[in-house]
Amino acid sequence: MTRPNPISGFPEWLPAQQMVEQTFIDRVRSVYELYGFAPIETRAVEPLDQLLRKGGDTDKEIYVIRRLHADDGDDGNADTLGLHFDLTVPFARYVLENAGKLQFPFRRYQIQKAWRGERPQEGRYREFRQADADVVNADQLPFHYDAEMALVFAEALRALPIPPYEIRVNNRKVCEGFYRGLGLRDPLAAMRAIDKLLKIGPEKVAGLLTETAGATDAQAEACLKLADISAADGSFADRVRALGVSDPLLDVGLDELAQVLESAAAHVPGVVLADLKIARGLDYYTGTVYEAFLKDRPTITIGSGGRYDNLASAGETRYPGVGISIGITRLLGLLGGFEVTRSVPTAVLVALPNEAARTGSDRIAAALRARGIATEVAPEPAKYGKQIKFADRRGIPYVWFPGEPDTVKDIRSGDQVEADAASWTPPVEDLRPQITGA
Amino acid sequence: MTRPNPISGFPEWLPAQQMVEQTFIDRVRSVYELYGFAPIETRAVEPLDQLLRKGGDTDKEIYVIRRLHADDGDDGNADTLGLHFDLTVPFARYVLENAGKLQFPFRRYQIQKAWRGERPQEGRYREFRQADADVVNADQLPFHYDAEMALVFAEALRALPIPPYEIRVNNRKVCEGFYRGLGLRDPLAAMRAIDKLLKIGPEKVAGLLTETAGATDAQAEACLKLADISAADGSFADRVRALGVSDPLLDVGLDELAQVLESAAAHVPGVVLADLKIARGLDYYTGTVYEAFLKDRPTITIGSGGRYDNLASAGETRYPGVGISIGITRLLGLLGGFEVTRSVPTAVLVALPNEAARTGSDRIAAALRARGIATEVAPEPAKYGKQIKFADRRGIPYVWFPGEPDTVKDIRSGDQVEADAASWTPPVEDLRPQITGA
Repeated sequence: MTRPNPISGFPEWLPAQQMVEQTFIDRVRSVYELYGFAPIETRAVEPLDQLLRKGGDTDKEIYVIRRLHADDGDDGNADTLGLHFDLTVPFARYVLENAGKLQFPFRRYQIQKAWRGERPQEGRYREFRQADADVVNADQLPFHYDAEMALVFAEALRALPIPPYEIRVNNRKVCEGFYRGLGLRDPLAAMRAIDKLLKIGPEKVAGLLTETAGATDAQAEACLKLADISAADGSFADRVRALGVSDPLLDVGLDELAQVLESAAAHVPGVVLADLKIARGLDYYTGTVYEAFLKDRPTITIGSGGRYDNLASAGETRYPGVGISIGITRLLGLLGGFEVTRSVPTAVLVALPNEAARTGSDRIAAALRARGIATEVAPEPAKYGKQIKFADRRGIPYVWFPGEPDTVKDIRSGDQVEADAASWTPPVEDLRPQITGA
Repeated sequence: MTRPNPISGFPEWLPAQQMVEQTFIDRVRSVYELYGFAPIETRAVEPLDQLLRKGGDTDKEIYVIRRLHADDGDDGNADTLGLHFDLTVPFARYVLENAGKLQFPFRRYQIQKAWRGERPQEGRYREFRQADADVVNADQLPFHYDAEMALVFAEALRALPIPPYEIRVNNRKVCEGFYRGLGLRDPLAAMRAIDKLLKIGPEKVAGLLTETAGATDAQAEACLKLADISAADGSFADRVRALGVSDPLLDVGLDELAQVLESAAAHVPGVVLADLKIARGLDYYTGTVYEAFLKDRPTITIGSGGRYDNLASAGETRYPGVGISIGITRLLGLLGGFEVTRSVPTAVLVALPNEAARTGSDRIAAALRARGIATEVAPEPAKYGKQIKFADRRGIPYVWFPGEPDTVKDIRSGDQVEADAASWTPPVEDLRPQITGA
């Protein structure tokens, strides 16, 4: 076999970077659990018709799967299956499927991969991991959860070793109410046009607003003025009102958005701001929408979410929800390789004086592992200099020399001390690999 | 939308069982890391031709993926892609692809899902999670790793809350040498027949041996006699020799198998035994093979692995390896629902005296979370009895009542004490949900 090549859009990491991803996952999971979200996982596949129905924008490229030796007779699933493109649509299905067995309001987190057959580019992958948290209720979901999810979002990001970020929040009721108040007939088309603002700029969006949302030039201009408003405090509402448009839904939206900002200012000051151009591409959002960015990369979303009142319903019962999603793969891709103190979990390499001594070295390793210290035994009884080099190349900080007595050497400082495998412990910062920088 | 139905072979758990799966994953990962295995993940897909080439037995049903809106022009990957059916084949490819950047011997673990379009039945899923650990080297991999992997296997299983299990070990050199010594021309066909022993019984296997491996009745009988040998110590070798077949490869195999047993007897007594009917279906194993079972379910493998000397090579360089794989999904499926102390991570529910007091309850929750105590605030200012019931239904052990002073109630015992959110801590066993039984 010749050396295989990567497949574009399907990223894979070397072990050190994988440890970084694992750290990201562990920390986000820990924050979600501190807020009482319970884990679930959904299967990778959903019926294709469901994916298509919930996909909203049709650029979303769905991967369909089929068995290579498919044979209609023996396949129990007549319906075509596709790989899920996010975790929200499967979650909505899971809630309906298990509604009788869940406690509502139901808080769940879900950290899984998703797939989209989009053209790979910066920040866009065909396979990527997301870390979602959502709360859903039967019938009605109180608005205070919209404020809470902004805090969960901020705290999850704060737990990560990433550069400064901000969470921009809007409320679709503000946009829809404003567009309606302006006299636009198709507020959803207007929102889709505004959603492209960061990508194509105001002139082209104005064109889209007239073409796809039937706006006059003056209406398009008003839409762009609304989208231009952002603020870290409640002042955004006055600026919206100064545009002279009024509508009952607009008032509800402004009030909700103000509540999210107030709560964020109290609990996570400086992270959350109102930004009225945030629209989110997906049709299922009905109120609050969140979008997170690294401050120095303001055009690439690192996480997003929002309120969806109509994603799932069965018979008379609706299951409204609000949630967030952090793009783990995208964040890692944007930040590039991290530096870590070592490329293996191993804290101690037990040296091997000769092959006959392997049982003794194995026993030392077992004693250290029994106390939670990750340990390997040297692969072969090479000269000690070579065994030390083996540790050094991997960043393993300690080499243990069996003897009378045993000694352990910190190969970074050269310090070597007598040690007993039943009691010696490395400093806590050496116990596991540490991320030292991006 | 009407209530959706599960898709056969694609299992999903309720949150409590998902927490159990997460515990399984965390514990296996922890053991793998204690042995110095570094994490990697591979993409879910591999080029179909690679999957077919490495698949070995052709019953393995591969899922092919294609983009719904595929269009030859804009698809960068001309080759068809399939979902991986195990983690060993992708790992071998990963090693070749990254050989220049890895340190050998390379120890990695990988905990991911895999997919097989097989007919679902007990223990067989179409989507399932495996937890693998392997060590590979360039050119030669010393045999002592075969002994070490048996220990890793035993310790990983020991870390799990499962009923008594055993790891049955064989060595393909024993079988191949014995079959050769017997005069059989196609030892691989004989191994494949023996591999079916647990499923179809000795009579049918004898038939297969004569039909597919060209064995005479006497040869088939000798093969079955070999397969019948098992032992917890080195006595298996004498029993093999008593069958009167000799071959140099047989001697090598017996010696290797004895080494694995000796090491296991020293480090993990009572778990590993020699069982000469263990053959493993996959063609790529070349020496040691492992297969783990729950003692009361001796026909369903819960994990397996082995030595593969020829799975990966590039130009002149071979990358021999030895590894194990624990069937996480299968184990959970076999053991059925576990009992856990609660269905949410939440340790404390902060009660809500009235909606205006939400900020105060939020602050208490934030103070508890800051010290690692998973906390939720009650969804609405219902009567306290109803709020306690909310906690009780989820198994949340403590309800916190804001007041002057605050108090916290253990709702299991009814004990209620004054408490300060800046310092109160629950007993460690209440901090996280615990698995109490299968």
